[in-house]
Amino acid sequence: MLFENIRNKTRIGVIGGAKPDESSRELALKVGRLIAESEAVLVCGGLSGVMEAAARGAKQGGGITIGILPGNATQDANAHIDIPIATGLGYTRNSLVAMNADALIAIDGQYGTLTEIAYGFIYGKKVIGLGTWDIEGVIPAQSPEEAVKLALS
Amino acid sequence: MLFENIRNKTRIGVIGGAKPDESSRELALKVGRLIAESEAVLVCGGLSGVMEAAARGAKQGGGITIGILPGNATQDANAHIDIPIATGLGYTRNSLVAMNADALIAIDGQYGTLTEIAYGFIYGKKVIGLGTWDIEGVIPAQSPEEAVKLALS
Amino acid sequence: MLFENIRNKTRIGVIGGAKPDESSRELALKVGRLIAESEAVLVCGGLSGVMEAAARGAKQGGGITIGILPGNATQDANAHIDIPIATGLGYTRNSLVAMNADALIAIDGQYGTLTEIAYGFIYGKKVIGLGTWDIEGVIPAQSPEEAVKLALS
Amino acid sequence: MLFENIRNKTRIGVIGGAKPDESSRELALKVGRLIAESEAVLVCGGLSGVMEAAARGAKQGGGITIGILPGNATQDANAHIDIPIATGLGYTRNSLVAMNADALIAIDGQYGTLTEIAYGFIYGKKVIGLGTWDIEGVIPAQSPEEAVKLALS
Repeated sequence: MLFENIRNKTRIGVIGGAKPDESSRELALKVGRLIAESEAVLVCGGLSGVMEAAARGAKQGGGITIGILPGNATQDANAHIDIPIATGLGYTRNSLVAMNADALIAIDGQYGTLTEIAYGFIYGKKVIGLGTWDIEGVIPAQSPEEAVKLALS
Repeated sequence: MLFENIRNKTRIGVIGGAKPDESSRELALKVGRLIAESEAVLVCGGLSGVMEAAARGAKQGGGITIGILPGNATQDANAHIDIPIATGLGYTRNSLVAMNADALIAIDGQYGTLTEIAYGFIYGKKVIGLGTWDIEGVIPAQSPEEAVKLALS
Repeated sequence: MLFENIRNKTRIGVIGGAKPDESSRELALKVGRLIAESEAVLVCGGLSGVMEAAARGAKQGGGITIGILPGNATQDANAHIDIPIATGLGYTRNSLVAMNADALIAIDGQYGTLTEIAYGFIYGKKVIGLGTWDIEGVIPAQSPEEAVKLALS
Repeated sequence: MLFENIRNKTRIGVIGGAKPDESSRELALKVGRLIAESEAVLVCGGLSGVMEAAARGAKQGGGITIGILPGNATQDANAHIDIPIATGLGYTRNSLVAMNADALIAIDGQYGTLTEIAYGFIYGKKVIGLGTWDIEGVIPAQSPEEAVKLALS
């Protein structure tokens, strides 16, 4: 039973920009699918861009997706989010995205992604980077496969 | 597939005290079970007392449980929570419990429950009461069956 | 020097509706003025209605006013707020209004005020009522003078 | 009257590590003093290290200091904070520090400072750096004088 053990599955957060270029979107899609195939749960910000591509990939892989939203309506979540969580906190919710993952994979991204990377370190999470901010502590990966492998190791 | 449609299931929030008496605990257990049997998803604060009893009941009924936690560790959730969401907001998270349910059932409870009842009305949710605060707008129910029926109607 | 000791002054929170009737507005104005004349600092939600009337009164009395705002722009504060604090938390900021006062005076009010009354008790504050919710623990006052006296005692 | 116009004064946020080395502490002290001498208001996180040194400097310069605290007790603020604001949000409050300043000066700092730098850009604030993270958009300053001048320009 897929759902019976969801509490004990590893949660991988995928963080990244709302307006990625096509190659970043492809990376996010593959990362999401690999997370699902690894039987991990995807956590993301629930909206568009990297968040949507990763969630789409996770659902293609038969996985489960959690979206921690900035607004106060669960309907804001993209179509690939199974469990939307409304916060009403605006950008301040970025802290909660990092808090609710066991490890983070950052893809592309602007300043919002940078807050999530930094919160990842504050909360003691591993942070893997795929073409994202070059911040001390971020473990660079060369491919979606390597990123997910590093996140789960 | 139980989980495929979780996004579209009604979410019923059960709110109440961390230290209820035995009869309130029994009510919460039954309410949780009836929520699950109605194929709704249980949302609660994820900790002890009414929250734990309702989640236990929901799992006995084969349902799915979401716990919106005050602390920043998902491990804080009681053993019957499938999807713990850490917030790190302390009591301020009460707002998010109400925000993430379609309707609320309040059982017993002290001032924390009162904040959740009031946030329920702020966010336009229906609030059903079982031996709880007598607040204008709360719809009183005489039994767990009536409470869940009212919450879902 | 008025400002030198602001850290050590008692903070009285005035909570109440955004759309009070004229008599509640008058009560709030007087309460605000009396708080200032007592050399206490006014804390409120920073917006309109009871919040604005209390802040106006406090400034008429030569006092200092803090407004804890729901939005993320300090400019949202009414014209009588000296120190606007933006939170971006929406209604969830109500918890912070109660948290930042030593005692609360509730005037009129709807469900938002009810959350603040309840958070007042959660955080161990005294709560005085002037024509507001009749909640266990709220100390009723018959006049602005009595309310401020009770809040400061 | 110093306090009468506090609402209209520019607010400069000083962000930085809780455990800076001696030279960073000296920089923060000077920055704080210069902010006060420029008649701007200091906003900071209210605790130790860079936050405390900057607030100490601001008070030496006769200024006003606001501390946005992670905990829910105003008493947590360092001794140089005039207006402590409790949030109970933990590290999530970093967003509010950036939100409540017109410009930010970052000194030294670890990942918490990085979240505040990034939130600064999210909220459209100017961010000046003094020996801190080398992030795109941060305007480097060579001295406290230059930092405060840049922040106010």
